[in-house]
Amino acid sequence: MSALPQGQQNEAGGSGSEAPPRDQDRALRERARKVIPGGMWGHMNAARLPAAFPQFFWRAEGCRLWDADGNEYLDFMCGFGPMVLGYRDPDVDAAAAAQARLGDIMNGPSPLLVELAELLVGTVAHADWALFSKNGTDATTTCVTIARAATRRRKILVARGSYHGAVPWCTPSLAGVTAEDRAHILHYDYNDPDSLEAAAQEAGDDLAAILATAFRHDARRDQELAAPAFARKARALCDASGAALVLDDVRAGFRLDIAGSWEPLGVRPDLSAWSKAIANGYALAAVTGSDAFRAAASEIFVTGSFWCTAVAMAAAIATIGKLRDGGGIAQMAAMGQRLRDGLAAQAAAHGVGLRQSGPAQMPLILFEGDSDFERGNLFTSETVRRGVYLHPWHNMFLSAAHRPADIDRALEATDAAFAAVAARFG
Amino acid sequence: MSALPQGQQNEAGGSGSEAPPRDQDRALRERARKVIPGGMWGHMNAARLPAAFPQFFWRAEGCRLWDADGNEYLDFMCGFGPMVLGYRDPDVDAAAAAQARLGDIMNGPSPLLVELAELLVGTVAHADWALFSKNGTDATTTCVTIARAATRRRKILVARGSYHGAVPWCTPSLAGVTAEDRAHILHYDYNDPDSLEAAAQEAGDDLAAILATAFRHDARRDQELAAPAFARKARALCDASGAALVLDDVRAGFRLDIAGSWEPLGVRPDLSAWSKAIANGYALAAVTGSDAFRAAASEIFVTGSFWCTAVAMAAAIATIGKLRDGGGIAQMAAMGQRLRDGLAAQAAAHGVGLRQSGPAQMPLILFEGDSDFERGNLFTSETVRRGVYLHPWHNMFLSAAHRPADIDRALEATDAAFAAVAARFG
Repeated sequence: MSALPQGQQNEAGGSGSEAPPRDQDRALRERARKVIPGGMWGHMNAARLPAAFPQFFWRAEGCRLWDADGNEYLDFMCGFGPMVLGYRDPDVDAAAAAQARLGDIMNGPSPLLVELAELLVGTVAHADWALFSKNGTDATTTCVTIARAATRRRKILVARGSYHGAVPWCTPSLAGVTAEDRAHILHYDYNDPDSLEAAAQEAGDDLAAILATAFRHDARRDQELAAPAFARKARALCDASGAALVLDDVRAGFRLDIAGSWEPLGVRPDLSAWSKAIANGYALAAVTGSDAFRAAASEIFVTGSFWCTAVAMAAAIATIGKLRDGGGIAQMAAMGQRLRDGLAAQAAAHGVGLRQSGPAQMPLILFEGDSDFERGNLFTSETVRRGVYLHPWHNMFLSAAHRPADIDRALEATDAAFAAVAARFG
Repeated sequence: MSALPQGQQNEAGGSGSEAPPRDQDRALRERARKVIPGGMWGHMNAARLPAAFPQFFWRAEGCRLWDADGNEYLDFMCGFGPMVLGYRDPDVDAAAAAQARLGDIMNGPSPLLVELAELLVGTVAHADWALFSKNGTDATTTCVTIARAATRRRKILVARGSYHGAVPWCTPSLAGVTAEDRAHILHYDYNDPDSLEAAAQEAGDDLAAILATAFRHDARRDQELAAPAFARKARALCDASGAALVLDDVRAGFRLDIAGSWEPLGVRPDLSAWSKAIANGYALAAVTGSDAFRAAASEIFVTGSFWCTAVAMAAAIATIGKLRDGGGIAQMAAMGQRLRDGLAAQAAAHGVGLRQSGPAQMPLILFEGDSDFERGNLFTSETVRRGVYLHPWHNMFLSAAHRPADIDRALEATDAAFAAVAARFG
């Protein structure tokens, strides 16, 4: 049996920095070591984080999380992105619950499939059609497969260091990966039009697709917004060759621009991969595409047991509608800017060199001269002890549930954390 | 807006064979053609079925489905497998709803991750550990990656015609697939120990894994239970070489033997892939493995945004517990046998040659001399018009919600359908 906290709720968000209770988390990690390889796997493995971070979570609501010991956190990771309107958003959950009372898995999709595809086609600027899956990796892999089927070519240009998923053609680890899995992947440098052109020349008449994330959101380095000249060069190379321009909007989608993250740049992709925020935490991914790639999309065979479950589609319709009508993206950007301005002022006051990068609603913070992340680890450990969950080296996520009072509350914790960094590192 | 039926419910399950209303399904297909490639994709595409089959479903309960026009069907596909206890099983849904009130996506797993891994390790005979994902394809691909990481070898032996998922290394269509995607896949014939040995010799000292489905459940041909000599040969070849024996239990898992589908054969795999029935329709997949492959499983990097969502894990714990304690597998087998016996008697009475294959709880029916599936298409079209959803060429699925009265009701429809086949084909 699991050891769920029975109603207790610790005020980890107090003014002190004493370590909050961790007995449940410790016991769970001990049990996990026996039945889960390495005790945990993937991007949610807390072994990649300082000891102050909990591994297991008990509950969530709005922009707050409670760990397995009942310690409360004001959250800036949003489940690594999916939570865009707030944990357990009442409108999304009500739509999902209403569909759950009818059916979820059936022998075919519910009518909501058509409704959701129509909603995406009406919302995403480049989209003439949509199909759905479960993982972001499903969506990026499907885009690559469609591009190859459409062009009858093989080479895919990928930015060095970009994350596009966790299967052999793209996973960051080479363990279990063969050379052939990546035989047709060529690399360029994000935001460097010349390197993109050189990679396209290397691909020659075998160029199937240029794949790019919405912005450069690689972990452990400053983020970079997509340069208009880079995006336009990618579009021009695809126009000249007939290759597909594939936008990987899995991480940034529905946080930068609801019509697609490159819409403000005036550059429309041929195919886009979506997931994370599309249904406010319900498992769903999507590919949208233009008419030129419709035939290829119907020629390939991709599917999954749960790709047409109706509850996640009900959640997606509610999520996209609420984001579109409720000004959620502007709200996230404003709250991210409020946090960014506050952090900049505090860093200056404490004499700590802080680099803030990325869109305000998906911020990354790194410390000057902190190549080993010692300052970042100390800083975020101090905020976690004070009930504010920040990440030391991965981009964070704002949601439409964050309010000015939440940002101000977070800034109380960060002020103390800056003081700790200044005290230790001078 | 979708056009959900407002409370109507057609008695498609009457005694006549007049076509039930289809206006909603027809209108939805027309809309879908505009916004979904080919109007639908994947294994749930009704274009692969006779015209009598609906594409869109409105609701489901127990062993019954209602299509978008409100026509009722007694179901023998179970959503292509996931529904193992009955659609909207009250115990599973209550467990899921209780967790949903706490949280689903969070910054890490809930304690239910540990509880579920412990449950699998305690239930699945070969399992020392477990990790979780969303698609059956995630699980099979992860098994292949673990096997390669553990052995530092590349070749994977796969049975000709076996379905292991829908990504480039294994999807049935070659559209968008490169030769390199399958460079290290070698083929053998299911249930043929000699061909397995020949393939292993071809792999030589580069053999990473032998991959096999729980039984031969290829579509459009007679099913074959796994022959003990074949399973033992696979085990012996892996023991001799250090390669991984990987059981793809995605489709059959939790319907043949709760400890693993090859447990009755006395052959234990090193790695198993699970999905479909693991959480009674909630999106979840799992890999279980032995201690020998634990280090490799922690070395690879696989992950997905929704792989740790807690609601599906609550559903899985409830599903596995209820199946284990409630005798669900025996119930499914008994109901499948009741259907099989009834069909055999009817086929004989009508003078129609019928071949029934596969485990009784996952039956396939094919007609003699029916290479173009004309008889099967007519037969299932007649049952569908009478409110009984059978498949003309894919294995079907029983659930623990099927009762003797349901089977008898289905046999009323099949008796009329056999008469139609006899009348048309003599």
